[in-house]
Amino acid sequence: MKYVLLYLPRGRKKFLVRADAGEFHSHRGVVSLEEAASKGYGSIVESSTGEKFYVFRPLPVDVALKMRRRTQIIYPKDAGYMILKSGICPGSRVVEGGTGTGALTIILSHIVGDGGKVYSYEVRQEFMKLAMRNVNLYGYPERVEFKLKDICEGVDEEEVDAVFLDIPNPWDAVDKVWKSLKPSRVLCVFVPSVNQVEKAYFSMSGLFEDIEIVEIFLRRISVTKERVRPETRMIGHTGYIITGRKVVKDEA
Amino acid sequence: MKYVLLYLPRGRKKFLVRADAGEFHSHRGVVSLEEAASKGYGSIVESSTGEKFYVFRPLPVDVALKMRRRTQIIYPKDAGYMILKSGICPGSRVVEGGTGTGALTIILSHIVGDGGKVYSYEVRQEFMKLAMRNVNLYGYPERVEFKLKDICEGVDEEEVDAVFLDIPNPWDAVDKVWKSLKPSRVLCVFVPSVNQVEKAYFSMSGLFEDIEIVEIFLRRISVTKERVRPETRMIGHTGYIITGRKVVKDEA
Amino acid sequence: MKYVLLYLPRGRKKFLVRADAGEFHSHRGVVSLEEAASKGYGSIVESSTGEKFYVFRPLPVDVALKMRRRTQIIYPKDAGYMILKSGICPGSRVVEGGTGTGALTIILSHIVGDGGKVYSYEVRQEFMKLAMRNVNLYGYPERVEFKLKDICEGVDEEEVDAVFLDIPNPWDAVDKVWKSLKPSRVLCVFVPSVNQVEKAYFSMSGLFEDIEIVEIFLRRISVTKERVRPETRMIGHTGYIITGRKVVKDEA
Amino acid sequence: MKYVLLYLPRGRKKFLVRADAGEFHSHRGVVSLEEAASKGYGSIVESSTGEKFYVFRPLPVDVALKMRRRTQIIYPKDAGYMILKSGICPGSRVVEGGTGTGALTIILSHIVGDGGKVYSYEVRQEFMKLAMRNVNLYGYPERVEFKLKDICEGVDEEEVDAVFLDIPNPWDAVDKVWKSLKPSRVLCVFVPSVNQVEKAYFSMSGLFEDIEIVEIFLRRISVTKERVRPETRMIGHTGYIITGRKVVKDEA
Repeated sequence: MKYVLLYLPRGRKKFLVRADAGEFHSHRGVVSLEEAASKGYGSIVESSTGEKFYVFRPLPVDVALKMRRRTQIIYPKDAGYMILKSGICPGSRVVEGGTGTGALTIILSHIVGDGGKVYSYEVRQEFMKLAMRNVNLYGYPERVEFKLKDICEGVDEEEVDAVFLDIPNPWDAVDKVWKSLKPSRVLCVFVPSVNQVEKAYFSMSGLFEDIEIVEIFLRRISVTKERVRPETRMIGHTGYIITGRKVVKDEA
Repeated sequence: MKYVLLYLPRGRKKFLVRADAGEFHSHRGVVSLEEAASKGYGSIVESSTGEKFYVFRPLPVDVALKMRRRTQIIYPKDAGYMILKSGICPGSRVVEGGTGTGALTIILSHIVGDGGKVYSYEVRQEFMKLAMRNVNLYGYPERVEFKLKDICEGVDEEEVDAVFLDIPNPWDAVDKVWKSLKPSRVLCVFVPSVNQVEKAYFSMSGLFEDIEIVEIFLRRISVTKERVRPETRMIGHTGYIITGRKVVKDEA
Repeated sequence: MKYVLLYLPRGRKKFLVRADAGEFHSHRGVVSLEEAASKGYGSIVESSTGEKFYVFRPLPVDVALKMRRRTQIIYPKDAGYMILKSGICPGSRVVEGGTGTGALTIILSHIVGDGGKVYSYEVRQEFMKLAMRNVNLYGYPERVEFKLKDICEGVDEEEVDAVFLDIPNPWDAVDKVWKSLKPSRVLCVFVPSVNQVEKAYFSMSGLFEDIEIVEIFLRRISVTKERVRPETRMIGHTGYIITGRKVVKDEA
Repeated sequence: MKYVLLYLPRGRKKFLVRADAGEFHSHRGVVSLEEAASKGYGSIVESSTGEKFYVFRPLPVDVALKMRRRTQIIYPKDAGYMILKSGICPGSRVVEGGTGTGALTIILSHIVGDGGKVYSYEVRQEFMKLAMRNVNLYGYPERVEFKLKDICEGVDEEEVDAVFLDIPNPWDAVDKVWKSLKPSRVLCVFVPSVNQVEKAYFSMSGLFEDIEIVEIFLRRISVTKERVRPETRMIGHTGYIITGRKVVKDEA
């Protein structure tokens, strides 16, 4: 138990805190992390003001949602879809272009397991540092190789099982990631604007087939006695997901 | 190469066929599966009528979408979200209630890897047989243990990492799956109607916390030259996903 | 020109102000309403700090969206659909149950014109007063008859062209509004929760046919150069709209 | 009673038929229209095979939804929103560019009443003829002036209260409709693709303010005993609605 997720039912707030930090000072009083550790996952600890907190085991998605600073966040609805559509599994070797804060990196390295590897490219040094820090704290550093490199200039790895691109100009990387992928394997592109969808789509045509573009919406439902209804607030847009399978050319 | 996915760009059709079946007879001519196998994944084979088919490696989601007969289908948008929210990973021991055709079983067993296990409960013998057949053909039979048993009467396994319920009456199984889960681990419930959401929610209260209910929409975008637009047809509803983390009681 | 809508492009803010108020004090400086009136609709006036405001003619939907205090708001997406589905037009006699702040009252009285009438029922005196004030300020008071009465206890009017119910317990009013409607005419019910949908639906069965329940989503798109994308924030839920046409019984 | 809407609860089918046609031959038997007329709106008539049909008064939206042939349909969710956002009311003088089959023409002429007028432009003679026929049959021909003219070449009317454009190239008409509108009044544009949204938006900038782009989704809910759930099928996309208010320039 290195980190714990403290969950405050009032307001449904979550706090990701070091298990060995001694105390956690919240707006609802001080929580003893020693008590949390000794009681264990799933238990309740009371803060100094008598507020109940639950002690949970942090999941990769909890961690990813806590990293919302400075770049667009990757939401579970999108990451989950990309993972299934990419077909990655324990042992997969995966390339990621655009490390950002490392949120998707953590999720990918969770899925590929000890036998797999994530090669993560980032051009902005400060983001690579931040992502390395995040992966060291919350993730699986031994499963990730960080590269301070522009993925648009080439991919070092060959015969990889999937590629994920979350960069502003994915079309500049498409032919390079095509080379690095095994035949039939999937490229997943995540972009926020329709203009990017259009450019990315045409850059993939001919190199990839079964190209699909989707957007995914998630709506929460609230339940109280005799009153089930969707929540008023909703995220209306995160980004578009483009997937395609690598095709090879007949040599003539 | 045991099965291949033949992809016909015209109409975006996909066919899951045995690689050793000799020939595949489509409405667009006969495809030689020997040629497909010799050319390999990602290549193009022409049918007897000159129609181009791509030879792809089937992914678990391809297989899941082919099993739509006789029960509600589980869509990648929902399965992907459930996998991330459950936190399962290589090595996880997972319980599934309601095997159905085995579509989710195949996806789960893909994610947990060789070191993991899926215990899948089903009361209807004909479904268990169908699912066993599907898992044998397309999945990882050695990772799955099928049980012809009503999960509402109890779960044999202890200390499991996640539970997935896709049965009409999940509320009847909630206390049993609570027992079988490790503390802090996640129960995922999938139900199609709001009435089921309400009953399931209240049955989970007190045993689980951080209960979230969501519905997920997916919309496809079509791109042709100078014309990007969402597709006219869309699946408006599949089901609601309820997730919660197991809490433990203070012994007094 | 009794009221004007001042529109501040920065932040897309709108202010509904009396045209004869002299000055409007905004967080972006003071706007002269005399200048606004003399320049006329569609013109630009500059505030004391040099900020540009547009002078627009307020529409009923502008007014309705300004009344969001104290009750649920009625959004144009919902009101527009209800108006079309109800078939109301110039000259219609319409009953409204649940005046609230009078937002829908103003929209309805706008559509029915001078030859039409809106009979609006409200049990809470403070709301009726508020609605009367709003209709007097921004609407067509001569087209509205306010009634401090519970519509569940009966409708005074006969042979009306449409009924709109926006009350917590529409099922208690259904048989009364059925009586007051012309045959084949439409009852529109607006409710926020699924439980209310279910109860309202069954209360309408037999008295109304062609019953339809819908929910309407609206998503805004933002356009900047080379960057078209949906907005991140979205209203995920307002309410469900139930419509049905009155049927008459064979006398036997 | 010139036309009636026969409603067949089984399958929720609707038939728009002439009241004086004698008989209506459906796939569920023959319905006597004389009986329908004598029993009146809201009543039940039985077909020759004993199937129950309800006799309803057709609404403009019923008519609009029956005209789906040959052009894109305008749905109530979109038309209702456009009507409210345009602020049209009894007496309004309205310009429509792109008559199509006349579906929106009928809705607009319903709303503007006897004192209003709809000027409808169409370049394709066969559509204008079809629309004239539809408006003669189901609408208010005396309220509509059809013009076999390209609205992109100019609008004859001045000081109109609203303009609706449903043509492939609205950007070519924007400056002409700007001239024809009263200051502060609203232009509504309906286009199916994002590329059209982008071009239309930039063509409106400077001439219109408070420009809003929205898309509207509608989902139906089905209710049966103890089972409330959204319907599986849904229209995922119809088009985008762009609205803006005319601004005038300072003369210098």
